[in-house]
Amino acid sequence: MKINNKNCQTIWLNENDNKIVQVFDQRYFPHEIKVIDLTSSDDVYFAIKEMVVRGAPLIGVTAAYGVYLICLEAQNKENPNEYITNTCEKLKSARPTAVNLDWAINEMLTTLEHVNTTKEKIAVALEKANAIKNEDIQTSIKMGEFGLEIIKEIARKKNGALVNILTHCNAGWLATIDWGTATAPIYKAFLAGIDVHIWVDETRPRNQGASLTAFELNQQGVKHTLIADNTGGHLMQHGLVDLVIVGTDRTTKNGDVANKIGTYLKALAAYDNHIPFYVAAPSSSIDFSIADGVNNIPIETRDENEVKYIQGLLNNEIKSVLICPETTPAVNYGFDVTPARLITGLITERGVCGASEEELKKLFPEKY
Amino acid sequence: MKINNKNCQTIWLNENDNKIVQVFDQRYFPHEIKVIDLTSSDDVYFAIKEMVVRGAPLIGVTAAYGVYLICLEAQNKENPNEYITNTCEKLKSARPTAVNLDWAINEMLTTLEHVNTTKEKIAVALEKANAIKNEDIQTSIKMGEFGLEIIKEIARKKNGALVNILTHCNAGWLATIDWGTATAPIYKAFLAGIDVHIWVDETRPRNQGASLTAFELNQQGVKHTLIADNTGGHLMQHGLVDLVIVGTDRTTKNGDVANKIGTYLKALAAYDNHIPFYVAAPSSSIDFSIADGVNNIPIETRDENEVKYIQGLLNNEIKSVLICPETTPAVNYGFDVTPARLITGLITERGVCGASEEELKKLFPEKY
Repeated sequence: MKINNKNCQTIWLNENDNKIVQVFDQRYFPHEIKVIDLTSSDDVYFAIKEMVVRGAPLIGVTAAYGVYLICLEAQNKENPNEYITNTCEKLKSARPTAVNLDWAINEMLTTLEHVNTTKEKIAVALEKANAIKNEDIQTSIKMGEFGLEIIKEIARKKNGALVNILTHCNAGWLATIDWGTATAPIYKAFLAGIDVHIWVDETRPRNQGASLTAFELNQQGVKHTLIADNTGGHLMQHGLVDLVIVGTDRTTKNGDVANKIGTYLKALAAYDNHIPFYVAAPSSSIDFSIADGVNNIPIETRDENEVKYIQGLLNNEIKSVLICPETTPAVNYGFDVTPARLITGLITERGVCGASEEELKKLFPEKY
Repeated sequence: MKINNKNCQTIWLNENDNKIVQVFDQRYFPHEIKVIDLTSSDDVYFAIKEMVVRGAPLIGVTAAYGVYLICLEAQNKENPNEYITNTCEKLKSARPTAVNLDWAINEMLTTLEHVNTTKEKIAVALEKANAIKNEDIQTSIKMGEFGLEIIKEIARKKNGALVNILTHCNAGWLATIDWGTATAPIYKAFLAGIDVHIWVDETRPRNQGASLTAFELNQQGVKHTLIADNTGGHLMQHGLVDLVIVGTDRTTKNGDVANKIGTYLKALAAYDNHIPFYVAAPSSSIDFSIADGVNNIPIETRDENEVKYIQGLLNNEIKSVLICPETTPAVNYGFDVTPARLITGLITERGVCGASEEELKKLFPEKY
């Protein structure tokens, strides 16, 4: 996808030194486009924990390159294998909710298991991280194509009139490597000439909708309107939303979806107004080991200052303003769980299915 | 209620000159406590339109004093009666959703109808505005007492354990003259020694929860926690909310409730989790002329910059920061409508009733 008309991806190796992983520092979008170097496992841990990179798929790919950097570091350790195991465990703890973090690190470790020397491990890790990255792009493209059919069908029913799609948080290309998860069908529809307009939830706290989704839609030229998170229900009551598509940080084997806090409220409103509610769920974000999302998905609690302070641009500088009395206590849950019963379907890289164990099993029989 | 331990009301006459109406400029809470003078009908129009004062009951009382100022102005007009009629009509247009604005101005005009001279009108208008103000306080106190019984019953069922109450926006004493609407039962419960804790939705756009509700609960010493608007559903799923109480800007005769945008989403979540959802609805905010809230209550659209910019404190100054690309379009609906079917009950000054025409009729038979 494009930033300032230049094709970009969200993570890459420095062209002169493949020991340097580079990413956009997403904490400064849309006001500053800042690239930072990740040269150590500590850098990767920090980048994931502090949301320099965010979005379940990008967290996974960044962690994969993190394992490559860990292998590089292991060269200078007395016990390289122990170092790799322990540092990978630490990296897994950077954020609790997105299952892609675990998934990618486990994929890397499984691949490295039977590689003998550290030197070989480095080469294999780099190759595998590149493969996970490329696979993520392909996954997005496939979800885009499957999701496009849903949008096409709505456009057909509306005789080509504007299709209004609501999304929450950023499950855009900035949350992946390219194309996005929830946005992949949107970009595909846009490129196919379907008249689409996106309602962008600002997505408090941290405002990933306002700062990332609005930014990336703007950069690709897709029509959109920013709204407060409170607004979606009103729009749905008045026929102004045809479809909701969101991403997921972890989906259970029966189709419960953990996603950015507030997703559940939009799912309730969509259900109440008979509006299709889809979740773009690459299999890397499906946790086939658990069945009860509300009770079993760990929900991250972040710093209360992300609620009390809001970051934005003032006189060309990024500043944070306090929105409540300084002594007010706040709590900051990062995610909530939308029960499968409220979800029309899951868009995966293998096709669209209902949010249920039975339906998921048909697409991913090897996982059950 | 108290600000800095001093008993206050939200509107009063200057003690040395009763031609000056004084109010807190609520646009600067909690960071600055600023009193401003309203000395003309233009001042009152501005104060209501720009949300210097806000909250349906306070809008009503401010408008009542506005009519008093209009009568003062009428003294110098060629046709005082025409001036009063026209200026009152203009004042009614300051904000479209809260029905108290119409209600209070109509009450004033009815009272003035058979008063002959402008001089007499001034005296009668002042007396009536004072009466409307005092009635508002009594209404809040009565709603507080009726609502207290609901909280008492929950505390009893929980054997005295903490009662968690969620509220949206500010239906606090700052939205009325004293005590509040949704907060009146909370303050009564607090004073009765019931252990209450309030989840305060920050309430985007304009953040009246963060800037007003958190501020006033803090000033009275009531336990509370600020949350993003997205958070309520998660809390309800996990048993962390015992009761929701919100205010209303306009309630239809069958119990549909227009309130700050986002209220509908909380009502859906409460319904989905079997949590009682009450609306504190003084009769001045009930529009007995309409029955279909979603289709017939006019919903105010405000400046998109209230979505794109967020105001807060930075280095002891109040500043606004831009949270999205500067060119991003935004839309700003001020209210949504919660259908009666999602509402457990209405707390009125005559008692608590179900949200239905049948139930409202029992309490307000003269209106049907």
